Parts: sequence; C-alpha cells; structure tokens
Amino acid sequence: MSNRLEEFRAYRTRMNDRIGQIDHLGIKRFFNLDGAAYKDGALDAKTKEMLGLVASAVLRCNDCIDYHLIQCVDAGWTDEELYDGLNVALIVGGSIVIPHLRHAVETIDTLRAEQKSIP
Amino acid sequence: MSNRLEEFRAYRTRMNDRIGQIDHLGIKRFFNLDGAAYKDGALDAKTKEMLGLVASAVLRCNDCIDYHLIQCVDAGWTDEELYDGLNVALIVGGSIVIPHLRHAVETIDTLRAEQKSIP
Amino acid sequence: MSNRLEEFRAYRTRMNDRIGQIDHLGIKRFFNLDGAAYKDGALDAKTKEMLGLVASAVLRCNDCIDYHLIQCVDAGWTDEELYDGLNVALIVGGSIVIPHLRHAVETIDTLRAEQKSIP
Amino acid sequence: MSNRLEEFRAYRTRMNDRIGQIDHLGIKRFFNLDGAAYKDGALDAKTKEMLGLVASAVLRCNDCIDYHLIQCVDAGWTDEELYDGLNVALIVGGSIVIPHLRHAVETIDTLRAEQKSIP
Amino acid sequence: MSNRLEEFRAYRTRMNDRIGQIDHLGIKRFFNLDGAAYKDGALDAKTKEMLGLVASAVLRCNDCIDYHLIQCVDAGWTDEELYDGLNVALIVGGSIVIPHLRHAVETIDTLRAEQKSIP
Amino acid sequence: MSNRLEEFRAYRTRMNDRIGQIDHLGIKRFFNLDGAAYKDGALDAKTKEMLGLVASAVLRCNDCIDYHLIQCVDAGWTDEELYDGLNVALIVGGSIVIPHLRHAVETIDTLRAEQKSIP
Repeated sequence: MSNRLEEFRAYRTRMNDRIGQIDHLGIKRFFNLDGAAYKDGALDAKTKEMLGLVASAVLRCNDCIDYHLIQCVDAGWTDEELYDGLNVALIVGGSIVIPHLRHAVETIDTLRAEQKSIP
Repeated sequence: MSNRLEEFRAYRTRMNDRIGQIDHLGIKRFFNLDGAAYKDGALDAKTKEMLGLVASAVLRCNDCIDYHLIQCVDAGWTDEELYDGLNVALIVGGSIVIPHLRHAVETIDTLRAEQKSIP
Repeated sequence: MSNRLEEFRAYRTRMNDRIGQIDHLGIKRFFNLDGAAYKDGALDAKTKEMLGLVASAVLRCNDCIDYHLIQCVDAGWTDEELYDGLNVALIVGGSIVIPHLRHAVETIDTLRAEQKSIP
Repeated sequence: MSNRLEEFRAYRTRMNDRIGQIDHLGIKRFFNLDGAAYKDGALDAKTKEMLGLVASAVLRCNDCIDYHLIQCVDAGWTDEELYDGLNVALIVGGSIVIPHLRHAVETIDTLRAEQKSIP
Repeated sequence: MSNRLEEFRAYRTRMNDRIGQIDHLGIKRFFNLDGAAYKDGALDAKTKEMLGLVASAVLRCNDCIDYHLIQCVDAGWTDEELYDGLNVALIVGGSIVIPHLRHAVETIDTLRAEQKSIP
Repeated sequence: MSNRLEEFRAYRTRMNDRIGQIDHLGIKRFFNLDGAAYKDGALDAKTKEMLGLVASAVLRCNDCIDYHLIQCVDAGWTDEELYDGLNVALIVGGSIVIPHLRHAVETIDTLRAEQKSIP
C-alpha cells in the first residue's frame, strides 16, 4: 500500500523534472501558476488544499487526489475533516466518485502510517 | 442581471416543489442527504459551501454555482475569498471554466447589489 | 413551458436539416449510426431509449434529455418508470445532476400536457 | 484475466469495510441510498443494472463498469444484450469510450468463464 | 441568430473587463497564459485555434466553441475544414456533442453572413 | 517504460480482435467511422491526429493519448510541436490534465527511443 504512494511520488518527481527539461515556456508558466494558486492569499493555504482535494475528487483524478491529500495531511487537516470534505465530493459527484473515495481513504491510511513510522 | 438570479430562485423553488410532489423515495432521500452534507460537522457549514462552490465550478454547472454563491455570501465569505476559491477552480479546471467564472462574478455582483438595496 | 419544447424541436429540425446540407460524409454516417443504435435489437427500442435518457442525464445535456424523453414517452414509459430511471442517474451522477432533473421533470409534465390536449 | 476481477472484488470489499469503520453518517447514508437505487421499483432491478452499466460506461469508470457487469450477469442479461447496451454507450459517449468497451468485453468474458468453471 | 453572437461578444467583453477590475493576480496571469497559448510557436496560431475548437467541442462548451470559431474564421479556415475538425470532435465525443455541433454550424453560418455584410 | 506501450499495443490488438468477433453491427460500423475520421479530407491526416491527441488529453484518457501519440509520431510531428499541442490541452483542461501530460511526455520519449533502436 505504501508502495503505491511511494511510486506515485517517485514517478511524479521524475516526470515533472523531465517536463522541466522540455523547457516549454507555456507549460512552465502553468506549473508556476498552479503552485501559486495554493499559497496563502485571501484564503489560507490549508483551506485551498481542501478545495484542491474536493475539486480532484469530483473530477475523479486519483493522482490529483493523492497529491492534495499529501498536502492536506501536511497542512494539518484531521481524518474527520478530510472525510467530511470527501463527503461533499461524494454528494456533488455521485456514486461514480466511490472508487475514488476508496482510493482516497486508502491513501489517508497510508499517510497516517507513514507519520507514525517517523521516529 | 438581478432578474437572472430571481428567475433561477423562482424556477428552483417551483421545480423542487414539483419534485417533492412526485414523491419518489430515493429522490427525496437524496435531496435530504444533499442538504445535510453542508451542515456543520467536522468541517463547518461555511467551509463546506466554499467546497460546494469550487466543485460546481470545476464541473461547470451555472445553476450549482449560483446556488452555492447565494449560500457562500449568506455564510459571510468576502468577495476576495470567493475570487480566491474561484481561482483554484480555474487552475484545476482550465480555460473551459472561464465562461463560468464570468457567470460567477456577475452573480457575486448581483448578490452584493441585493444586499445594499435591503434597508 | 410548452414553448421551450416546441422551440427545441423546431431548432433541432432546422439545424439537423442544415447539417444534412453540409454533406459531410462522416457526420452523415454518424447521424445514421446514432439513429440505428436505438432500433430494436438484442435490446428493444423502448429499453434503449431509457438507456439514452440515463446516459444523457449523467452527462448533463438538457437537449439530449429532452430528445430521449420525447422518445421515451412515445415508447410508452410511465412517469413513475421515468422517475425511477432518473433516480439512477441522480445517484450515479450526484447533485450536479439536480438542475437537469428539474429540467427533465418539467419536460415530462409538458409532454403529458401535450398528450392530453390532443383530441 | 480472472485475477483482475478477483483483485477488484477483494479491494472493493476491503475498502468498503474500511469506509464503514470510518463511520461518517453522510457517507453511510449515501452507500445505503446507492444500494437502494438498484432494487425493484417502478423499474425492475434487472433493468436498473443495465442503466447503471451504461451510465458507468459513458462516465468512463472501469470499476463501476465491472461492478455493474457482475450485477448484470447475475440478473440474467445475455452477452448480446450487454453488447447492445454498450453500443448505446459508445454512440452517446464516442470513441473515448472504446478503451472502456475493451475493458467491459474482457470482463464479460471473464464472468462467463467463471460461470462455466462452477460445477 | 446574429444577435446571439453579438450578445456573446458584448457579454464576454463586459465580464472580462469586470474580471480585470477584480485584480486577482492568479486569475490575471491565467488569462495572459490562455492568450499566449494560441500565439505562433512550434505550431502556428491557425492550427492552435483549430485545436482550441475541437477541445471546446468535446468538452461541450458553447461559449468556448463560439470564441474559437470566431478566431478560426479570422485565421482563414474554410467551412469544409471546420466541419472536418468538428467531425473529429463528434467521433471522439459521441452523440452528446451533437447539440454543440448544431450550435457550431449556426455560428459558422452567422460568421460568414457577417463577412458578406461588410462592404 | 517501453513495456507499458508494448502491453498497450498488445492488449488493444487482442481486445479489438475480440470485439470484431462479437460481430455487433453498430459497434463495427462505429469502429470503421472512427478510423475514417482521421483520413485525409478537408484537413489532412496529420492535422487530424493532432486534433485527436488534444481531444484525448482534455478528456483525460491515457489509452487514447497513447494511441494518437503513436499516430502523431508516425505522421511526422516533432516533439516541440507535440508539446505545443499538449500545452493547448493543458490550458483548456487545467491542472487536472497534468497527470496525463506526464504520461504523454513519457510516451513520446518511449516512441523516440523505439525509433532510434530500429536499425
């Protein structure tokens, strides 16, 4: 289980580096803009990560869900808060979101296990 | 402009009443569950309305955007906070969200004008 | 209300005729294939129209919903059966389907009113 | 091939159990409502499973397709009827559905092989 | 018919101006990036507008279709080429694209009528 | 990495053959129509493959992206042109397209490696 998340992180880093090498100005600027969208602003970074999570869940993108869950756990959201946000995604997006809810809950469990294993 | 929002509210009320008359147990329970999803829980109602707004924006549903904007303004979100949430939706969902951003900004302006006209 | 459906039918006929004039072989063949998909086969035409309705509802296309509702009413589906099919669409697709459920119920009411007004 | 379906069933059961443990009232009620949507009503359960299959196919969710195919085969739909339903999904949803059609046909073949291997 | 397009252009200009006033850095940078994506690069601007049109059609956004059709006609694409691009969108996206094909063909006809009426 | 693409090609061939065996007239005709949509017409085949790629990217289908990338490389598009097309998809579809951009860039690299290894 932990493997799945580690593979995602490694693949994401490797391919983002490769995309950086490509050196397409538009793509680079989009990546910068994407990063900036989740910084503290009128809304704080923590709230924005929850928004990113729910947007990813209703659009049904597992990689995006994993990325925002990593950020959400880092930002200090509790499990109960994450479940409550995912419930909004489930209601808005319907049962087609359920496979992604399963994925998200597994990722949350993995992230908590990782937290515990760090001495 | 205000007309568009008034028409939406009138149509929404009329057809939700009609759907109530239909008396389909599954549909009625879904509507109840939908209402319950935005009540205070692990996350507060105010945060959940912002989640509903961003989910509606990335899924590109103007009626849903209007509904959640009405709730968001009621819950006390400022314009700057709403724009910041919509910016997350724009980055996640891309330029295909722009027509809905135009719609959302118009709705926010209309809601603020309504607030001012109430003595 | 009836106007909305009459306008849809008139616009659909006018523009389908115009698309026919364009005389693009691929587009014409797709339209033929689309028509053929709802004819009696291993599944009967009536069942297929219900499938078309639910597919249109989860994909959130009001024009497609109206078209398949016209066909479904023609094929003999009752209101209760249509509501039950739309409930499946609501559960699969979530609250984002609700505006289209309102639209669909209004269309069903209009179609039934048209049936009554025919002597 | 059979492995893929067995893994899906095991993963689905394990994670649904885990989601039950989470004990979020909204999520639990949604799961109940989802189950109820496919019971006999104005439409019979068999027809509703076919609706669920076509909705899953146009929304392009392989896990949902597999789940509804399992139910459809259980409910007694023949291969020819399943193909005819999937053809409606293909026409409505376009070539982007083709990878899911390949997946669905493989799942049907696996389910039939399982049926034959049960003495 | 011409009215629809004129209204779209007026609304788009008015609301884009309003969005400019809002002065959200992220939104402004996204709008700039969006504009830049269609400039001559490794692909020429004309080809990119056709890409924007097909992307808009499969994502089923009428405002986006109208915007890119205006640009495509400006860039010199012929009707036959536009129809051929829309045919790709129809095949990829399926019959759910048909209402948007009707809209697109009407827009093309309006744009050509506008071209003829300019002395 | 090359394995992923080889597996895709083998699976695609095997299941398309199986779908051919099924012998459903509608499905067969759709596959023919799909093939025909990318032949030289008012637009040339090379341009149409780029349209298919961008449509696949905004609809977020990795198998479709891989298929059209194979065709695009065959048709002679350069890496820089492919990146520029993918940039349009990224702007239109937003950050939810990023995981598919990573996939696409990996596929392009694999296809170029395959080209080099052919003596």
